[in-house]
Amino acid sequence: MSDPETPITDDSKETLRTEAFSDGVFAIVVTLLALEIRVPSHETTEAAGGLLNALAENWPSYLAFTISFVTVLILWVNHHQLFKLFQRTDHFFRILNGLLLMMITLVPFSSALLTDYISQEENAKIAAMVYAGNFALIAAFWNILWFYGIRPGRLLDPKTPQELLDSISRAYLFSTPLYITATLLALIHVALSIGVVAGLAVFYGYLSPHRAHH
Amino acid sequence: MSDPETPITDDSKETLRTEAFSDGVFAIVVTLLALEIRVPSHETTEAAGGLLNALAENWPSYLAFTISFVTVLILWVNHHQLFKLFQRTDHFFRILNGLLLMMITLVPFSSALLTDYISQEENAKIAAMVYAGNFALIAAFWNILWFYGIRPGRLLDPKTPQELLDSISRAYLFSTPLYITATLLALIHVALSIGVVAGLAVFYGYLSPHRAHH
Amino acid sequence: MSDPETPITDDSKETLRTEAFSDGVFAIVVTLLALEIRVPSHETTEAAGGLLNALAENWPSYLAFTISFVTVLILWVNHHQLFKLFQRTDHFFRILNGLLLMMITLVPFSSALLTDYISQEENAKIAAMVYAGNFALIAAFWNILWFYGIRPGRLLDPKTPQELLDSISRAYLFSTPLYITATLLALIHVALSIGVVAGLAVFYGYLSPHRAHH
Amino acid sequence: MSDPETPITDDSKETLRTEAFSDGVFAIVVTLLALEIRVPSHETTEAAGGLLNALAENWPSYLAFTISFVTVLILWVNHHQLFKLFQRTDHFFRILNGLLLMMITLVPFSSALLTDYISQEENAKIAAMVYAGNFALIAAFWNILWFYGIRPGRLLDPKTPQELLDSISRAYLFSTPLYITATLLALIHVALSIGVVAGLAVFYGYLSPHRAHH
Repeated sequence: MSDPETPITDDSKETLRTEAFSDGVFAIVVTLLALEIRVPSHETTEAAGGLLNALAENWPSYLAFTISFVTVLILWVNHHQLFKLFQRTDHFFRILNGLLLMMITLVPFSSALLTDYISQEENAKIAAMVYAGNFALIAAFWNILWFYGIRPGRLLDPKTPQELLDSISRAYLFSTPLYITATLLALIHVALSIGVVAGLAVFYGYLSPHRAHH
Repeated sequence: MSDPETPITDDSKETLRTEAFSDGVFAIVVTLLALEIRVPSHETTEAAGGLLNALAENWPSYLAFTISFVTVLILWVNHHQLFKLFQRTDHFFRILNGLLLMMITLVPFSSALLTDYISQEENAKIAAMVYAGNFALIAAFWNILWFYGIRPGRLLDPKTPQELLDSISRAYLFSTPLYITATLLALIHVALSIGVVAGLAVFYGYLSPHRAHH
Repeated sequence: MSDPETPITDDSKETLRTEAFSDGVFAIVVTLLALEIRVPSHETTEAAGGLLNALAENWPSYLAFTISFVTVLILWVNHHQLFKLFQRTDHFFRILNGLLLMMITLVPFSSALLTDYISQEENAKIAAMVYAGNFALIAAFWNILWFYGIRPGRLLDPKTPQELLDSISRAYLFSTPLYITATLLALIHVALSIGVVAGLAVFYGYLSPHRAHH
Repeated sequence: MSDPETPITDDSKETLRTEAFSDGVFAIVVTLLALEIRVPSHETTEAAGGLLNALAENWPSYLAFTISFVTVLILWVNHHQLFKLFQRTDHFFRILNGLLLMMITLVPFSSALLTDYISQEENAKIAAMVYAGNFALIAAFWNILWFYGIRPGRLLDPKTPQELLDSISRAYLFSTPLYITATLLALIHVALSIGVVAGLAVFYGYLSPHRAHH
């Protein structure tokens, strides 16, 4: 705003503040995930015949915590790499980044939903669809942010090689259909759907540094 | 304090710390908004005839989450732009910024209140008044911060064109009466009041970059 | 650690990280304070004869929120000014700062305690003692940090005038006895004790910039 | 990614962002620890014969809060010192750091578990094993991060003296067996196990600056 020639693009200080805000949201989301692991009540413990059993019965929350934490961690690492390619942010980039973060703040909710309903046949399907669907939405907003950001001559570091951008775009483009597939899979087989979500986190975790070799 | 000539103004490092503190509060507030979306209890789900219905009945929390998240996101983006115009902060600017943040930390409360009472005829009016009133208070403290900050020769970047300041001042000045109108509207029509709050978020989201063209 | 000559003192980067960690804790504490304002349950609202009455009955939580938020905000502003005087941090300074933050993280607990018990004659005295006592502990750890930090030739910016240090030391030294007085006052008169805590926040909020004039 | 020659190593800006994310998680974890201290319900207070008694009965939560806060604080201070030795981070370093943070986010859960079950003979043993075991896992992931990070010629500041690295490695290597010992001790004597966890926090708090003298 202080430079009327480039009214909606900003310099690296503004990029830093967008990163700081994003890092804050990521840090709070991963920490809140752990809050969804509940201490068993004294009644539950007594009914289960001791704390060891009560804790063991809690396995869905450990599973959901682990998959969600690792997925959000990979998202953070990739968000970090994505921002390295941008020299500037602009108003709509910050809004789009905010909407992506909005989808990420829902992960503790959808994890808790999955944990609570995983052993209820029909409801488990709904819960797993919400869970995988949450990541499908994240993937969709991620792509919107990415394709908005890489429009030539605006926010990108101009030295970024085109083939690197193409390789990243290909990897990102597949993410939304893959998560939608996981969402639909939940209708047939809950465990398989969750397995695909877990597998995609590992896949994107391994992919990103290798992508950079091309 | 280390420079007795300018005892209550500080350099950019201090501005950064005020921004970091503000970013932290904004990041926590938006993440806590998602915590107000509750997982339906097993009893609620059974009574509703399945998780899909139980989730559908929860629509007021998704609505309040969306409006509140987007409004706070726009506030963050605009807070960010506002701070770009300031070279320094001083003691009272930090206090006023803190009081603005205080009003913003109340948004998860007023969102939850709206969600819980939206279907109770008379109480819904009170809840919607609190909700819109919360944003009216935010708008009022925003204006106090802005008009304190732009006093000539203190905190502003001296290169800021006066017409830019005037254009921003005009846009901000309208915000408090508009939110007070939304607050009073709740007495007559709850949905309309909520619609005005949602519309104002979109309006201020679009306005700010265009304002910079003048 | 990378410079064996000055093994436990660090440069400004480390000071920044200690400030960032502190800012994070301050930001979370003030935001969590707002979470202690509970949405009235439907039963409470019905018993009170409507949401307006139910919200009005909640006045102790608004009072505790306001006093606690403003006090923690003033602590943040002063923490900020305190760190401007230090060029370095060392290991024990970071530990002492951490213990100060530990006392500050207890404020949401002692605020909630005060809110819950303010209308129970005898228990209100205990709750108000815990509340004021929490701030007495904060004041005590603040002084420990301050007097550790200003030992000559270690962490302080060497250009800091001695009379500024003396003036700050005097203001800080009084804080612990004043908060202990407020704690003991709670035994006699709860409202007076809370009033002193509120007054001290305003007092330290006004004092710090004026102190810098000397 | 923007430099194809060193595809998975980054410069100091990226290290800063990893530190900021870590600081955020540490700040939220320590603040959430205080949330585990619950305000006694009016029924509990009445049954205990007054708020003072009810608060006194709450001693396990103050104990767990104190030990957990101090341990996480020491972890933060040491994490801080560890990162001073690294000039860069790479993809897997960030993932490993994230997994370390994942273990740290579990501390509020294991603290609450200990608090809730400390007076139930057999269940207290399980709770204390989970508590000490949580720190054993943290120590294990800390070592993985450390030994990954110090591989020669990658992330380390090349000026770091080898004897300093050796001395730190020795101190870290002992941590996992010591916490595993504390975990097993819980089977025999709960208080002793908790005492060892508390003692190790103090030990590592004192050790780290002294280590730097070599």
